[in-house]
Amino acid sequence: MVLKMVKQVYNFYAGPATLPRQILIKAQKELLNFDNTGLSLMEISHRSKEYDKIHKKASLLVKELINIPDNYKIMWLQGGASSQFYMVPLNLQQIGKKMEYVNTGVWSKKAIKEARFFGNVDVVASSEDENFSYIPKNIEFGNNIAYAHITGNNTIYGTEYHNWPNVSDEVPLVCDMSSNIMDKVIEFNKFGVIYAGAQKNIGPAGVTLVIVRDDLLERVPEKTPTMQKWKTHSDKDSLFNTAPCWAIYMCKLSLEYLKQKGGISNIEKINRKKAELLYDFIDNSNGFYKGYAMKDSRSLMNVTFNLPTKDLEEKCVLEGSLKGLLGLKGHRSIGGMRASIYNAMTIDGVKKLIEFLKEFQEENQ
Amino acid sequence: MVLKMVKQVYNFYAGPATLPRQILIKAQKELLNFDNTGLSLMEISHRSKEYDKIHKKASLLVKELINIPDNYKIMWLQGGASSQFYMVPLNLQQIGKKMEYVNTGVWSKKAIKEARFFGNVDVVASSEDENFSYIPKNIEFGNNIAYAHITGNNTIYGTEYHNWPNVSDEVPLVCDMSSNIMDKVIEFNKFGVIYAGAQKNIGPAGVTLVIVRDDLLERVPEKTPTMQKWKTHSDKDSLFNTAPCWAIYMCKLSLEYLKQKGGISNIEKINRKKAELLYDFIDNSNGFYKGYAMKDSRSLMNVTFNLPTKDLEEKCVLEGSLKGLLGLKGHRSIGGMRASIYNAMTIDGVKKLIEFLKEFQEENQ
Repeated sequence: MVLKMVKQVYNFYAGPATLPRQILIKAQKELLNFDNTGLSLMEISHRSKEYDKIHKKASLLVKELINIPDNYKIMWLQGGASSQFYMVPLNLQQIGKKMEYVNTGVWSKKAIKEARFFGNVDVVASSEDENFSYIPKNIEFGNNIAYAHITGNNTIYGTEYHNWPNVSDEVPLVCDMSSNIMDKVIEFNKFGVIYAGAQKNIGPAGVTLVIVRDDLLERVPEKTPTMQKWKTHSDKDSLFNTAPCWAIYMCKLSLEYLKQKGGISNIEKINRKKAELLYDFIDNSNGFYKGYAMKDSRSLMNVTFNLPTKDLEEKCVLEGSLKGLLGLKGHRSIGGMRASIYNAMTIDGVKKLIEFLKEFQEENQ
Repeated sequence: MVLKMVKQVYNFYAGPATLPRQILIKAQKELLNFDNTGLSLMEISHRSKEYDKIHKKASLLVKELINIPDNYKIMWLQGGASSQFYMVPLNLQQIGKKMEYVNTGVWSKKAIKEARFFGNVDVVASSEDENFSYIPKNIEFGNNIAYAHITGNNTIYGTEYHNWPNVSDEVPLVCDMSSNIMDKVIEFNKFGVIYAGAQKNIGPAGVTLVIVRDDLLERVPEKTPTMQKWKTHSDKDSLFNTAPCWAIYMCKLSLEYLKQKGGISNIEKINRKKAELLYDFIDNSNGFYKGYAMKDSRSLMNVTFNLPTKDLEEKCVLEGSLKGLLGLKGHRSIGGMRASIYNAMTIDGVKKLIEFLKEFQEENQ
């Protein structure tokens, strides 16, 4: 439900999600005349000098912001994280070795399903017993496996890893960071591969960021269709075929915004502040609002909570939308409410939400 | 080479290519407030009612404009035509049957290369003997093959099929129409599958139109990764995972423009007029300009031609760009010059180009 006729709105959708207003204004301004060419960026060759600057800058910003070591390759691919669900096992499989996964919800399950097309998969830990309301602790991956896979943040349940599981030096840790890429500082060399659909934390739908340690690019079986190999894209700096130029351009603008805001260390502070404000409010609502995820697994990005009844939840979602607080409905698989407070959500937006929830409680409890 | 400080420019790039000015203006206007939501389309869920209207309308316009029978499914996929090069054989292969291709250039060769990963491929006709300057005649496909594949238009060489080859009723004809989709009226039921990257004739980069006769969706082997099956996307109306919403939105605007211009029958008239003007000028230039493609294979979309020397070609490209006529350099594999005059190029733009070429000839011959 999206509201008509409201001036200032706050977008709590889980994804595609809110983008910084200032980058949308810049995109609008440049839409008809990109870089003084007289053309729109959407009309310019992906091999032009003008586009190439955007393309290279977007990758450079990723490298700077996450502090990625030189032995990793940054790729901008199409097909969403859903395509990486098969590209990961296809590119990393090793004959005779298992692929190990942690199951923390719907998206982990989808990743596991695709991996099974390529070999033996073990699910070494799962939180399905409590409908995915937590991140399993003491996860133990084998030492002689092809790779270890986790889902960094689980949008549906509002859970997130706060400590990365240990893997032995031989084992690449692979992480789907679609909904928490750049939400906090990470030590990148813990990972072999990370991937992230852009449409939650770093841009619009239509492009997926994939970062792979360079030695892992060599594992792919030779007889693999060209477009399915990471190496194809890595060798050509994601310009083997026509790139989704507009989506990458929007990511570049969004990454510039994150840099301007003080980089990820500062973004992390803001994200922790936003999450703290909202979770504290929920925890101090005398049980009217109740967090869904267990406290030690709570996501910085997706805050899931319930009200005393389903009717009240529906009423709250509706009244929020009438006040310009959009997208607060929880995912159908767990119900309740969800506020997605990605990097582009301001502290002010979270305060407005809390103000509304307070009033709603006073009027309805 | 793109010019700075010119007001009116004409974009002859081969792709990503020119878009109708009026749709860019509309996109700019709506960028910050889509459908009165207070949000950008780039921030709205692909499952929202607002986006859904765009998505359905885009497919409906394709169906109307090309006059597609009800037993075909329309899909909006990611990964470019380059991904269809493997998705075609993967989805259409049949054990014990050959896949037959016609080789009309670089893009055909790429398609053939990917098909070989999936079984036996025969190249039944080729124009490689004359560096792809023509479309082979009297093409004969077998009667007991999995499918027959052609490349509808060859951007690099400026060649295009004007008569579709015959296939027996049992054999699906598959056509890569990336650079000539909707350039003329076609009888759709001649085809089993057509696919087209959007970025030449119907939109920006980042989405690929794929249209498949519904009985062919059932051929794919069961043990195929989910995202690689057309059926996955067809069953969910291209919303199995997050769609590239902005690119589809731009396609919708572009398709509305084509409808407004009188539909494809009228677009075909305009395209024939544009091509006729330009080819006639070339043919009547006393040999100063010389068409590359053989006359009966000339493309309506990409007009390739040479000048007496390479130096003159370079000079002509440069001087054109200084006058706001952009992207006239030929592809490196054949050299010379190329004017891409896709659906969004106006007759006026072609006239401006001819005017310039005339002056250039007078000054340089």
